[in-house]
Amino acid sequence: MSSSGVTLTAPVNIALIKYWGKLDETAIIPTNDSLSFTLSQDDMCATTTAMTVARGVKSKFWLNGKEMDLGHPRIRAVVEEVRKIAKVQGTDETLLDLPVRIASINNFPTAAGLASSAAGYAAATAALGALYGVKGDLSRIARIGSGSACRSISGGFVRWIAGSTSEDSIAVQVAPENHWPSLRWLICVVRATPKAVGSTEGMRRTIQTSPLMPARIASVPDKISAITKAIQERNFRAMAELTMQDSNQFHAICLDTFPPLFYMNDVSHRIIDFVHDYNRVKGSLIAGYTFDAGPNACLFTEQENFDELASVVEALFSDGVETDFVKGMKPERKVDASKLLDSINVQPIKGGIKYAIGTKLGGGPRKIDHEKFSLLDANGELIDRA
Amino acid sequence: MSSSGVTLTAPVNIALIKYWGKLDETAIIPTNDSLSFTLSQDDMCATTTAMTVARGVKSKFWLNGKEMDLGHPRIRAVVEEVRKIAKVQGTDETLLDLPVRIASINNFPTAAGLASSAAGYAAATAALGALYGVKGDLSRIARIGSGSACRSISGGFVRWIAGSTSEDSIAVQVAPENHWPSLRWLICVVRATPKAVGSTEGMRRTIQTSPLMPARIASVPDKISAITKAIQERNFRAMAELTMQDSNQFHAICLDTFPPLFYMNDVSHRIIDFVHDYNRVKGSLIAGYTFDAGPNACLFTEQENFDELASVVEALFSDGVETDFVKGMKPERKVDASKLLDSINVQPIKGGIKYAIGTKLGGGPRKIDHEKFSLLDANGELIDRA
Repeated sequence: MSSSGVTLTAPVNIALIKYWGKLDETAIIPTNDSLSFTLSQDDMCATTTAMTVARGVKSKFWLNGKEMDLGHPRIRAVVEEVRKIAKVQGTDETLLDLPVRIASINNFPTAAGLASSAAGYAAATAALGALYGVKGDLSRIARIGSGSACRSISGGFVRWIAGSTSEDSIAVQVAPENHWPSLRWLICVVRATPKAVGSTEGMRRTIQTSPLMPARIASVPDKISAITKAIQERNFRAMAELTMQDSNQFHAICLDTFPPLFYMNDVSHRIIDFVHDYNRVKGSLIAGYTFDAGPNACLFTEQENFDELASVVEALFSDGVETDFVKGMKPERKVDASKLLDSINVQPIKGGIKYAIGTKLGGGPRKIDHEKFSLLDANGELIDRA
Repeated sequence: MSSSGVTLTAPVNIALIKYWGKLDETAIIPTNDSLSFTLSQDDMCATTTAMTVARGVKSKFWLNGKEMDLGHPRIRAVVEEVRKIAKVQGTDETLLDLPVRIASINNFPTAAGLASSAAGYAAATAALGALYGVKGDLSRIARIGSGSACRSISGGFVRWIAGSTSEDSIAVQVAPENHWPSLRWLICVVRATPKAVGSTEGMRRTIQTSPLMPARIASVPDKISAITKAIQERNFRAMAELTMQDSNQFHAICLDTFPPLFYMNDVSHRIIDFVHDYNRVKGSLIAGYTFDAGPNACLFTEQENFDELASVVEALFSDGVETDFVKGMKPERKVDASKLLDSINVQPIKGGIKYAIGTKLGGGPRKIDHEKFSLLDANGELIDRA
């Protein structure tokens, strides 16, 4: 059998109700459900090529141009699980037995701290699934690679149902990508501070030491119900409040961990103060924020306020030198924010945000033209696209 | 009757188990017990003179040289409560009817953010109590002035029993000042960030909005028992762990408040990382931290480690220019920290700490020579001591 291949992209997702803590570290069964928003792949995505190569050729895996160890338990588990399901579904075993080559790259800087492993594992899982013709849920397998990757297997709003076993811990779509087309995101890449504790170690420490964690876990089901309702009704205010409160609570739990985990920094705090003050000045809750395990702010608003929000954020937090402050989906026009800035009681931090990425709701993984975009050549060797 | 007067000093106290939130805002009944450590008045104190003046002369109150409104509900409540008790205890009503003049100053900068109002109200309450010859508990009255002031009415380790009425919400001594003479404190005055939300407003917001606050309140009784035991046994490790965890939890609750309250900043976070790393390098828990509603770090250790701790903190966080980095109780010798610093995985923040104040456990309010130290002249006018 000749070699075959598939190339596809997978999206980044941002949790509105956060995942932080595993009940089972190996199978990645989380302590609570989480709910996320899939970002448009027009602005950010991971691209993955998966292909079989001739018998006797070595299987390989490249991540962002760097060869990784295919023996890594998480990578191996994903490959094995996809093959197992494919076999059950009747895929030709000759194909499944061939060595495989996988290459994955992100089109956004790792520095953006945007859970690049989630997009990467979702892309790899989806590519292998397509390569082997697997039908049905793949979120379960992406989850084994990197917990929140399961939420990047679908577009729109996605709920990761915690479940209690490796079989029932899956992600399901709550609303499709065209449900709320007016939502806009502004991912603000904040000036770096020294590397914080990684999320795997951080979660473990929280589970072991945070006295407040059980109260948080107990409160999540109600939050999931409330935000699902807010999303279904496109109730921006309710969605934004629940999202901001859950982000704050996640960071509160990190602080209640011992030794404490700090992911937000002074710039993050100032951005939060700004969002609350901006809403006060506007007389209405029109902007929200959420922060993952890092200092970067994910701000959101509706289309009609996006240009203004981007202009005010740039005025307060850019270094004033960078002319291309908003990348990705750009504002349609520059808004004169000077009058608004007079009313805002927040001191600027020049250069606090390096740049921002504008984006919107997007869909799940999508196949792209393999001949044209493959990251691997016909022999399964990495194509240098730098 | 001729005028009479009294001058005394009262200490600063630092909570090991924090007070944050009132059940009753007027009477200042807290949501939970708190437990504090009274700092030596040799290094920091509030000094207050209270004196009666001739009938017809106006009553006045000066705080740090500035005349305050005696009609302020909290100040008035303290004066009225002391008089009420004095009357019950049989103090001559002619004395109680005379106008009163009170002046209070702190010998430490307000910038130190060290609950100066606690020391000030404790001093004013104690001075009025002495002026009118009141016997018995005064903590209840100091509490009406400024909640945590009740804990500055005693020396050593002090527990504020939340109670449920204005009568039974009082502070009691858990252990006297000579119980643990080897304890040392290093109050680190951190580079200022813009003014945060004040504690009265902050507490109110927490009570109204923090979903995790009930879990914290429910956990305090066990913490109070555990830290009381640790103090009684002079178990540094247990005392330090409980103190650090409670400080972190207090700030976690602030973050869980909506909009969130930020009191610690990047320098505070770095100091915490440093303390944990310092303990790791030393192979034993020998230093602890606690932070009130501000960025300043209150570090503590035992006498044998004080010189080294002060030297390492200075090396990491001073601006390198200030030669008088530790004020108050100074280290006996400068320790060469260079070898230790090689092992510590924490990046310095030059100038992050403006200066530090060394101190130890101290006693409650103490009368000082009125003739010599009175802040008011014989006519009750403010003496300019600047």
